[in-house]
Amino acid sequence: MRKVSFERNISKHAEGSCLVKFGDTHVLVTASLEDKTPPWLRNSGKGWVTAEYGMLPRATGDRMKREAASGKQGGRTQEIQRLIGRSLRAVVDLEALGERQITVDCDVIQADGGTRTASITGAWIALHDCLKWMEARSMIKVEKVLKDHVAAISCGIFAAQSVIDLDYLEDSAAETDANFVMTGSGGIVEIQGTAEGKPFTEEEFTGLLALARAGIADLVALQKQAVA
Amino acid sequence: MRKVSFERNISKHAEGSCLVKFGDTHVLVTASLEDKTPPWLRNSGKGWVTAEYGMLPRATGDRMKREAASGKQGGRTQEIQRLIGRSLRAVVDLEALGERQITVDCDVIQADGGTRTASITGAWIALHDCLKWMEARSMIKVEKVLKDHVAAISCGIFAAQSVIDLDYLEDSAAETDANFVMTGSGGIVEIQGTAEGKPFTEEEFTGLLALARAGIADLVALQKQAVA
Amino acid sequence: MRKVSFERNISKHAEGSCLVKFGDTHVLVTASLEDKTPPWLRNSGKGWVTAEYGMLPRATGDRMKREAASGKQGGRTQEIQRLIGRSLRAVVDLEALGERQITVDCDVIQADGGTRTASITGAWIALHDCLKWMEARSMIKVEKVLKDHVAAISCGIFAAQSVIDLDYLEDSAAETDANFVMTGSGGIVEIQGTAEGKPFTEEEFTGLLALARAGIADLVALQKQAVA
Amino acid sequence: MRKVSFERNISKHAEGSCLVKFGDTHVLVTASLEDKTPPWLRNSGKGWVTAEYGMLPRATGDRMKREAASGKQGGRTQEIQRLIGRSLRAVVDLEALGERQITVDCDVIQADGGTRTASITGAWIALHDCLKWMEARSMIKVEKVLKDHVAAISCGIFAAQSVIDLDYLEDSAAETDANFVMTGSGGIVEIQGTAEGKPFTEEEFTGLLALARAGIADLVALQKQAVA
Amino acid sequence: MRKVSFERNISKHAEGSCLVKFGDTHVLVTASLEDKTPPWLRNSGKGWVTAEYGMLPRATGDRMKREAASGKQGGRTQEIQRLIGRSLRAVVDLEALGERQITVDCDVIQADGGTRTASITGAWIALHDCLKWMEARSMIKVEKVLKDHVAAISCGIFAAQSVIDLDYLEDSAAETDANFVMTGSGGIVEIQGTAEGKPFTEEEFTGLLALARAGIADLVALQKQAVA
Amino acid sequence: MRKVSFERNISKHAEGSCLVKFGDTHVLVTASLEDKTPPWLRNSGKGWVTAEYGMLPRATGDRMKREAASGKQGGRTQEIQRLIGRSLRAVVDLEALGERQITVDCDVIQADGGTRTASITGAWIALHDCLKWMEARSMIKVEKVLKDHVAAISCGIFAAQSVIDLDYLEDSAAETDANFVMTGSGGIVEIQGTAEGKPFTEEEFTGLLALARAGIADLVALQKQAVA
Repeated sequence: MRKVSFERNISKHAEGSCLVKFGDTHVLVTASLEDKTPPWLRNSGKGWVTAEYGMLPRATGDRMKREAASGKQGGRTQEIQRLIGRSLRAVVDLEALGERQITVDCDVIQADGGTRTASITGAWIALHDCLKWMEARSMIKVEKVLKDHVAAISCGIFAAQSVIDLDYLEDSAAETDANFVMTGSGGIVEIQGTAEGKPFTEEEFTGLLALARAGIADLVALQKQAVA
Repeated sequence: MRKVSFERNISKHAEGSCLVKFGDTHVLVTASLEDKTPPWLRNSGKGWVTAEYGMLPRATGDRMKREAASGKQGGRTQEIQRLIGRSLRAVVDLEALGERQITVDCDVIQADGGTRTASITGAWIALHDCLKWMEARSMIKVEKVLKDHVAAISCGIFAAQSVIDLDYLEDSAAETDANFVMTGSGGIVEIQGTAEGKPFTEEEFTGLLALARAGIADLVALQKQAVA
Repeated sequence: MRKVSFERNISKHAEGSCLVKFGDTHVLVTASLEDKTPPWLRNSGKGWVTAEYGMLPRATGDRMKREAASGKQGGRTQEIQRLIGRSLRAVVDLEALGERQITVDCDVIQADGGTRTASITGAWIALHDCLKWMEARSMIKVEKVLKDHVAAISCGIFAAQSVIDLDYLEDSAAETDANFVMTGSGGIVEIQGTAEGKPFTEEEFTGLLALARAGIADLVALQKQAVA
Repeated sequence: MRKVSFERNISKHAEGSCLVKFGDTHVLVTASLEDKTPPWLRNSGKGWVTAEYGMLPRATGDRMKREAASGKQGGRTQEIQRLIGRSLRAVVDLEALGERQITVDCDVIQADGGTRTASITGAWIALHDCLKWMEARSMIKVEKVLKDHVAAISCGIFAAQSVIDLDYLEDSAAETDANFVMTGSGGIVEIQGTAEGKPFTEEEFTGLLALARAGIADLVALQKQAVA
Repeated sequence: MRKVSFERNISKHAEGSCLVKFGDTHVLVTASLEDKTPPWLRNSGKGWVTAEYGMLPRATGDRMKREAASGKQGGRTQEIQRLIGRSLRAVVDLEALGERQITVDCDVIQADGGTRTASITGAWIALHDCLKWMEARSMIKVEKVLKDHVAAISCGIFAAQSVIDLDYLEDSAAETDANFVMTGSGGIVEIQGTAEGKPFTEEEFTGLLALARAGIADLVALQKQAVA
Repeated sequence: MRKVSFERNISKHAEGSCLVKFGDTHVLVTASLEDKTPPWLRNSGKGWVTAEYGMLPRATGDRMKREAASGKQGGRTQEIQRLIGRSLRAVVDLEALGERQITVDCDVIQADGGTRTASITGAWIALHDCLKWMEARSMIKVEKVLKDHVAAISCGIFAAQSVIDLDYLEDSAAETDANFVMTGSGGIVEIQGTAEGKPFTEEEFTGLLALARAGIADLVALQKQAVA
């Protein structure tokens, strides 16, 4: 696993924020508290946590067209932001949050593989700090709202070997690519495994899952240290 | 598993086509041969297989806004059509296909859960028939291009029980929802598992995988019968 | 006139539905009851009937770009859906309908000329069945709301001869192309005549109108049989 | 029929231009010669005539949203510009025009009913002057390219009486509304008749057609005078 | 300075309107009174004045793509309409206007340089007449709402000489291009100076400002004459 | 003037990059070398420098809607990116650059007033470093391409006093707001002065210009230090 770090409170305005680095992948995460909720939750007593994801145009080796200029978010962007939102909601008690929305923005400053796993892992920190901000204002109790940690890691089979936390080169060449999202207590929130080339076997997949479990345990330990 | 059927050649125009039914979920699939390839494959000698997915507005219990009228495809639509395309490409030899593109359109006529798994499973039939059409014109050899079957099934945990091929009601209420895409020879192409409520355990997931394996074997047998 | 057929109740969800075939032109029509009305009718006591029209990408000989992907409905699509809506409203008493909206979706599964005339003719069936559904729930009286039948047919001059219900090849080659929408009692709802090549004479047009009148009488008879 | 006038050469830049007035309906028309042709005509030796239509936001009683700001042209706009283009092409020999495109822009400065018929009638003037401009540069012979006049008029049944060239108030209240496009020699190019309220009879329609024929003869006489 | 003229009341529908000409640059301006205000002013007691700007496709030497067809307003369009709105608001007492919005539409019929300065100068006339219309209905007092005149002129350095009111050819070739918006009493509302080629000196800029001051005094005198 | 700093080389991928801070306003700038040029420069031997500008959603006190999600860049965004591009081109010899494009992306990480002036000032650093990267590969000579420094500062009148480098609170409350872009040798590239409330006098404006001149001299000194 590459060197992972969290830098908290990097935004003057956001209720919670974090610059998360997984090696050369750097993601700026902010958590914004908003009083509105989505229409389908009005008067339900429940709140919502949602996420948006973006990449700066030159986060990548070649400059990509700016999504705001092209006029729409691509399929990959939408897929990732839905995944981040689902992952966070898996550890949040939406009733305890009350009728409010927290929007987590994950903006990739520099990409080198694993932007979605870094985003989820850093988003937990920003969300935590946003909830702490609310607790300081007697709006909620963090322990009631935030039920557990959540973190994510990619694993893959590259050159016939199982690898964890693939960087861009490994990811591009991997035969199998899987993303795992798990909680601090070891529950599985999301598994996405894709054969890039030839299909993979159940044994290979089980190996990746074991690797991911260990890696996520490390990430959760780092999260705990970061917010201690 | 619900009753599954394939009705072939339901389109006068398309090179391959199929009406696939998984219970009350009905999807119209066409495979269209086009001479163009995506820009990044020009002069590579390789072809491409891609998919698009749509739902008729009243395929669902409540009428949904037509995506053409709202002016964009939602995140879910884009996620599904990317999944269908990846699944088909896993069993196609793109070099043997040559510099051509096959576009598979999956349009849901009636939805009752499992539209993406029905789409993938029916798409294989339409793709197969499109390749047969090409073989009849001496463009390719089907056996060189189409390396294996591919089919998909959903499994979930519903009322604390493992269930296969969830319909809409089961899907809405499931605690865990997973989609599996596998080949005829048992290789795994794609695994997507999502905790809708509380996280799931590795044991639960392994149970779903075994269930899916059996279901997909049945689907492949039905595909074989259909194209025999 | 090509063989015309109506298959009712082909949707599990829609209040009214119909698969209409004019030869090789196949259109799936659903009628959806919605409680909302357009803003300009709020508190007027009147309802509304509107239509949307779409074509599956491979309904045609060459695959067309999906309108949802291109991000807008083309001019032809909008022109046709406005025509369908006007045609249906001509035989509906909007006050007797009450403050509700019925949206009729016409989706062309397979196209071979005359998709708009098939759509209108089939839409009457779906609308009728939707109103029957409402009558069964004591919401309206069908005889009060639905004042008459409405059906449509194309006529044209092709190879110097008047032809009715043109298929795609005839339509492409026609010198004059006209669409007629009439009611069961012979009233004219809409006439659209276009010279594709050289202008046509009043005599030619009168001939087409007579032809259309006879054809629409046949279509209305078939509608009566279908809902009997 | 309201007072009709044509003011030619009102644009410094356009090859042909005309301010056409049908009573209080004022439309600015320009005809622009462009060297490009649509892709489907490349190397065919044929040219093309096309039209675009727009309304200034305060051409109407209430200010309408600017189409450029709303980001798309509405269905009505597209329907009208397709009609103008078809009408002009009916009197142009596209082969004699050669591989060039003339784009006719009709922008409604002030609207009071009949904007599409004024547009078509004025567009013929602008097109004529554009062709004269080309003839002066030895590019074409006007008499070879422009085969006839074309003009348009609306007729309707209003308060149980046949009326020609309806203004906005008459148009809004008309029971039947029809637009006719005819050539100088009396050929019919386009007929569009719509029952706004109850369906109309064949006799009523025939009456409107006769009325239109007389009106268009007058318009053609005015066109001849204008370009004499 | 080119010949400047204002023709008032050129629209039957608009509360205020004006055709302004700066040489061959012709702009049609309408001022529309609307009862709505932007959301951020609701219940503030204040009104709003805003502007939209457009160019007819053939206002220019080469036909430009219609913004409604391309689906968005370009950066230049947005920049100009923001400038017009700010300029007008500088001389309006928004509280005295009350909770209403006046939308000023500036549509360029023919362009030959200076379309934004002609728009602002003509917009003052249309706004004035709209306010007069309101005063005649006892809605406001013009002298309370309209605090001063506002007009605009361009100046530039062309062939090493200071020039005022540049036409298209001068503007294209100018080394420095500046737009000035000033009030009747000589206050500066907006200054925009841009080096097209090499940067300009403070002395050059001061020279342009003096030139503009004189020109704007002339424009204000013409405005006074026009509304006298 | 607030504390200004430049942190160079903060992107692994971009040819030039810089994190520029003007107090609490932080902008990430990258300069990307691309082999393409805009269509109108093909075969001209000239290159191009262009800029894009964006704000992360929570760069501001309240979270703003993501422009990629809303599907278009607002007027303010377009106005600013056009200004940045013009400012940089004023000090670049486009012929000496050769047929290449450099795209400068300015993404505001945290906003507290003056984002456009910080962007321009930091963009010069990123552009300089991109050109150095090119020089190291013998593509150009920096001294031939980059003719001078360019920097920008805002000045305003706030509480009747001239202020330089306004932060968000000052900017919001300023009566007059002006942005100045100047070169290292004191030439003026762009002046934008806007009366937010009442118009300003020539004397006030001259005072702001003098203030800006001194501030920009300081910024250029800091740029020199940064790249020394």
